[in-house]
Amino acid sequence: MIVVMKSDATAQHVSDVIGRIKSDGYDAHLSEGEQRTIIGVVGSSPTPLKEENYGTMDGVDKVLRVTVPYKLASREFHPHDTLVPLNGSQMGSEKVLVIAGPCSVESREQIIETACAVKEAGATALRGGAFKPRTSPYSFQGHGEAGLKWLAEARERTGLPVVTEVMDPSLVPMVCEYADVLQIGTRNMQNFALLNAVGESQHTVLLKRGMSSTIEDLLMAAEYILSHGNKRVMLCERGIRTFETATRNTFDVNAIPVLKSMTHLPIVADPSHAVGKWEFVDAISRSAVAAGADGLIVEVHPKPDEAWSDGRQSLKPDRFEDLMKQVRRIAEAVGRTA
Amino acid sequence: MIVVMKSDATAQHVSDVIGRIKSDGYDAHLSEGEQRTIIGVVGSSPTPLKEENYGTMDGVDKVLRVTVPYKLASREFHPHDTLVPLNGSQMGSEKVLVIAGPCSVESREQIIETACAVKEAGATALRGGAFKPRTSPYSFQGHGEAGLKWLAEARERTGLPVVTEVMDPSLVPMVCEYADVLQIGTRNMQNFALLNAVGESQHTVLLKRGMSSTIEDLLMAAEYILSHGNKRVMLCERGIRTFETATRNTFDVNAIPVLKSMTHLPIVADPSHAVGKWEFVDAISRSAVAAGADGLIVEVHPKPDEAWSDGRQSLKPDRFEDLMKQVRRIAEAVGRTA
Amino acid sequence: MIVVMKSDATAQHVSDVIGRIKSDGYDAHLSEGEQRTIIGVVGSSPTPLKEENYGTMDGVDKVLRVTVPYKLASREFHPHDTLVPLNGSQMGSEKVLVIAGPCSVESREQIIETACAVKEAGATALRGGAFKPRTSPYSFQGHGEAGLKWLAEARERTGLPVVTEVMDPSLVPMVCEYADVLQIGTRNMQNFALLNAVGESQHTVLLKRGMSSTIEDLLMAAEYILSHGNKRVMLCERGIRTFETATRNTFDVNAIPVLKSMTHLPIVADPSHAVGKWEFVDAISRSAVAAGADGLIVEVHPKPDEAWSDGRQSLKPDRFEDLMKQVRRIAEAVGRTA
Amino acid sequence: MIVVMKSDATAQHVSDVIGRIKSDGYDAHLSEGEQRTIIGVVGSSPTPLKEENYGTMDGVDKVLRVTVPYKLASREFHPHDTLVPLNGSQMGSEKVLVIAGPCSVESREQIIETACAVKEAGATALRGGAFKPRTSPYSFQGHGEAGLKWLAEARERTGLPVVTEVMDPSLVPMVCEYADVLQIGTRNMQNFALLNAVGESQHTVLLKRGMSSTIEDLLMAAEYILSHGNKRVMLCERGIRTFETATRNTFDVNAIPVLKSMTHLPIVADPSHAVGKWEFVDAISRSAVAAGADGLIVEVHPKPDEAWSDGRQSLKPDRFEDLMKQVRRIAEAVGRTA
Repeated sequence: MIVVMKSDATAQHVSDVIGRIKSDGYDAHLSEGEQRTIIGVVGSSPTPLKEENYGTMDGVDKVLRVTVPYKLASREFHPHDTLVPLNGSQMGSEKVLVIAGPCSVESREQIIETACAVKEAGATALRGGAFKPRTSPYSFQGHGEAGLKWLAEARERTGLPVVTEVMDPSLVPMVCEYADVLQIGTRNMQNFALLNAVGESQHTVLLKRGMSSTIEDLLMAAEYILSHGNKRVMLCERGIRTFETATRNTFDVNAIPVLKSMTHLPIVADPSHAVGKWEFVDAISRSAVAAGADGLIVEVHPKPDEAWSDGRQSLKPDRFEDLMKQVRRIAEAVGRTA
Repeated sequence: MIVVMKSDATAQHVSDVIGRIKSDGYDAHLSEGEQRTIIGVVGSSPTPLKEENYGTMDGVDKVLRVTVPYKLASREFHPHDTLVPLNGSQMGSEKVLVIAGPCSVESREQIIETACAVKEAGATALRGGAFKPRTSPYSFQGHGEAGLKWLAEARERTGLPVVTEVMDPSLVPMVCEYADVLQIGTRNMQNFALLNAVGESQHTVLLKRGMSSTIEDLLMAAEYILSHGNKRVMLCERGIRTFETATRNTFDVNAIPVLKSMTHLPIVADPSHAVGKWEFVDAISRSAVAAGADGLIVEVHPKPDEAWSDGRQSLKPDRFEDLMKQVRRIAEAVGRTA
Repeated sequence: MIVVMKSDATAQHVSDVIGRIKSDGYDAHLSEGEQRTIIGVVGSSPTPLKEENYGTMDGVDKVLRVTVPYKLASREFHPHDTLVPLNGSQMGSEKVLVIAGPCSVESREQIIETACAVKEAGATALRGGAFKPRTSPYSFQGHGEAGLKWLAEARERTGLPVVTEVMDPSLVPMVCEYADVLQIGTRNMQNFALLNAVGESQHTVLLKRGMSSTIEDLLMAAEYILSHGNKRVMLCERGIRTFETATRNTFDVNAIPVLKSMTHLPIVADPSHAVGKWEFVDAISRSAVAAGADGLIVEVHPKPDEAWSDGRQSLKPDRFEDLMKQVRRIAEAVGRTA
Repeated sequence: MIVVMKSDATAQHVSDVIGRIKSDGYDAHLSEGEQRTIIGVVGSSPTPLKEENYGTMDGVDKVLRVTVPYKLASREFHPHDTLVPLNGSQMGSEKVLVIAGPCSVESREQIIETACAVKEAGATALRGGAFKPRTSPYSFQGHGEAGLKWLAEARERTGLPVVTEVMDPSLVPMVCEYADVLQIGTRNMQNFALLNAVGESQHTVLLKRGMSSTIEDLLMAAEYILSHGNKRVMLCERGIRTFETATRNTFDVNAIPVLKSMTHLPIVADPSHAVGKWEFVDAISRSAVAAGADGLIVEVHPKPDEAWSDGRQSLKPDRFEDLMKQVRRIAEAVGRTA
């Protein structure tokens, strides 16, 4: 931590800050410039440093953090890539893995039909929502446990592991019974009760970035899960909220290489939510894999214009098959497979 | 709903859209322009219209919604202001009510000392967190039920009702035992399981706007609570996330008069989180009341530079007392009291 | 400047950075922590420090700037408020000054009628655009010099000084002939050729914040003008671009007290562009003055529904008269006049 | 255009709107729903429709635009791709073209050395700034005409056409003498005087998206240039300003396929500014080409840690050579060359 004093800070102000640093158990290194004094905090102590408390002291201009606040998620402390097992493959390995399926599980027939189609096209896992976070209380909220059972049946038919969202901490045990991967949705990225619950479950987690969360916020949310000893965490970039209204979200493709440099966890991209219109999903999928994404999660529906949710961004199975071909070509161009 | 066809849509495309409108139980009004055909959907039907399904039909350019998607929160349907009782006064009435207290309940002494101080200065209610949503799993997470008990004790001493955050749906009943107002934090504005739980509780709710939620998103979140028959809902503008880094958030003061025009629910402003530095909290408080806010929620701490959280934006009691004087002058300037 | 080394930086990396600091003519203060080494740069030298060049050196994690990059605009170097003369009063003084008039100068009659009306209501200066920055090349681009002449005629009639936008550096001399204050619009805040031209003109300048410019960007733009010795600069907060679509822009009311703490220049608020709908202009005007704005610039049009531009956010003269009354009450509540 | 009436609009309000539509020379189609009346405006007239004037009429809730406001830039009106000649190739053709060079022209030697290096690696054109838009008036502002001369000399040596920024309308003729492509920088995207000047020049233009401009704003800025009969316009996505601070900007890769669907103009991506750190430029370049970009503009400097500007995001020549190889592989994977 570095404390930058104001240009009009007095010797007493500086002395008070140094006193506090010492009473917190650290050492203070003083750099006196012509205009300002800078105090570096070094050493270690059982007392954690609280930047904002220093920030309120008289004569202090600002306090700068030097180290990252996440440890378990950090590549600095864990240089090797974490590989998360999925259907005999591993997310984070050379092979780009694709998770596909409808936004909502609408019926037994719909989810089984879709599962067969995406498996045929080369998907590694099946997605489908039984509990749906909807902006409106009047929209379809998901079939709940019935939906989970249909997902499990689709897995039996196809062998595809099931990725599905959980929204309520109290339902984590039930969802774990049916699902292979627990998805934390964008609106719940900082639902800490839920993060703790999925952390404790020791189940594989797909953690979606909040729509206005920074990359660092995302890593801190992962840290919650990891702090329970659950290391099977995949991060998902799904677009952020910006001023642009031509697309549903703005896909932050920068986040992919930046995250790869900051963390050892695998990175999945969700092109469907990132752009919000099916006709652009292939371009965004290609861009994600080209930038280094380890996997994709794509919305596929047999009849998008009858979908109960997200029809506008869902691919028909034949288009998904074409998408898989495009993804394979890009994966090969970056030295991977798909 | 209005369906705008593409300029190259065929007669068959138009006919298909009209067919679907009719099979959904509505009437179609056709406006054929030189470049485009526009189809207005009128009438009523038990089948809800799904805009996005129309959006995926061939020949459709875009689908425009005409009516607001919230009913219970809407001023259009409920023109009269809702007044929410609070400590013998009413949020939403002529009197501007101020809720004040520390970010976190740190100890029995701290919360009682703060409660006495803010009461003395004229606060109507006491805020304080027993369950804290923290970005880092390594930060103080709150004292939990012990904190709630201290809050209740502070209420006994001062008569100030208690406003405190609840983060986990399963803890709503416990928090209701101690608290007068359940606060939904910015990170949980779209935690629908939680919104349903506080809706069912019939307890008074202070719903904070998500840091990247639109005004409409906020009203839809309120609609979740209202749809359980719980009408005691206060909305809170607390700043949104933008590109500006000089302040913690950007206080969207526009939202205050805009919300007053859209909804009958009372509007509270949180200047502490909105700007994030104590030295600007008075200016932002004044601006909120001048713009028409019905109340304020302000962070006050006896010793901000020892606060366990949010010290940077907490006022000392004497500054809070001064703030109350400023608020009263602005309230009078807009024909209210405080 | 502070250089933070990576945790795996070698002694050679540290030595190279120190060598460069010395060859640039500065001194290096070393703080060796357990995880990282931090190097403070102190002293002075004719060679300016280029942070980003240090940022590319091997072993460097990041480079932190300590001092503000603006000097002439900074309150740190110029603690006393700058007062800008306007029509016998001073922007930045106790009196809140209001500039009012139409978006575009549409005709001689329109501008004279409006000038008389706003003067009658208590405005200190007249605004009106003769050169209009329009998103579309097909929209009305302003009457040019003819418009300036009508503005000058309106000044003769009413005594109100004229505030008008200049968009092209080559037209600055001509606009100076007619105008009392040169307005730099939001789209030109970083049009450096234009900033230099108005700086050289020594004419009073109203500099609007760019719609996605940070507060620091705004001060740097002011620094361009000030660096020509032109000290008559007023800054204008007019709303920033965010994800919210319910309003034209998001009025960053936080910027007002934050700017007052960072700079000695007077701060004007533009509630008309900040919210974009006339029915909310009074609330936003009140909020701006309550937060400490020194002045307002408000769009007024005799017949908004016939306005050639910005009719949606223009007040009719009678509503402007009412606004002035509200502004006076708020000004008094904060110890000022209007 | 569609006018949506308020739910409490009277018959007189509706009648007034219809009267105005007719007096503007259009026809009105009425759709009376249970809650609201919707009025479609059809037909054509020499009087342009002003949405915002209708928006201020009594009883009107909102006015929706149906057609795009740009014509010359629109793919709807010009379905075939525009190809812009560049060094014997064409931007917009099957071949992905790469423009490369330093941020600033620092010296004759530097620009010639860089030109030779990027040519060797396969670049199609040379970039380099002689006039630099700098946030600070104290930063290097470019060598001006001397820089242009060195650029022209570099062209003679290598055959690479020169792409360079012009910032002042009055300097357009001079820059045209030396440059092959006029670059409009992000801060000048809505500098309409400049857009008109480069439009009139009939010189090839590279138009960069404003950092907070929507895709539609970008097309409207292009429309300014095109409206002068200058059809040689290339659009450039260079990252937008968002809340994320880990990168310099947020690369809006979505914009690439969206723009390709909306306009016939070629789309160039600037990965250097989009991400701001050289170590991620290759990943972002690959993502851009994978998404369908027609070209790239990349910052290359022989010694980034001595660069006068943008060193942090500049590639060394050997890394640029490697980038070209990566770009070629991605280009081939999407059926193109590079």
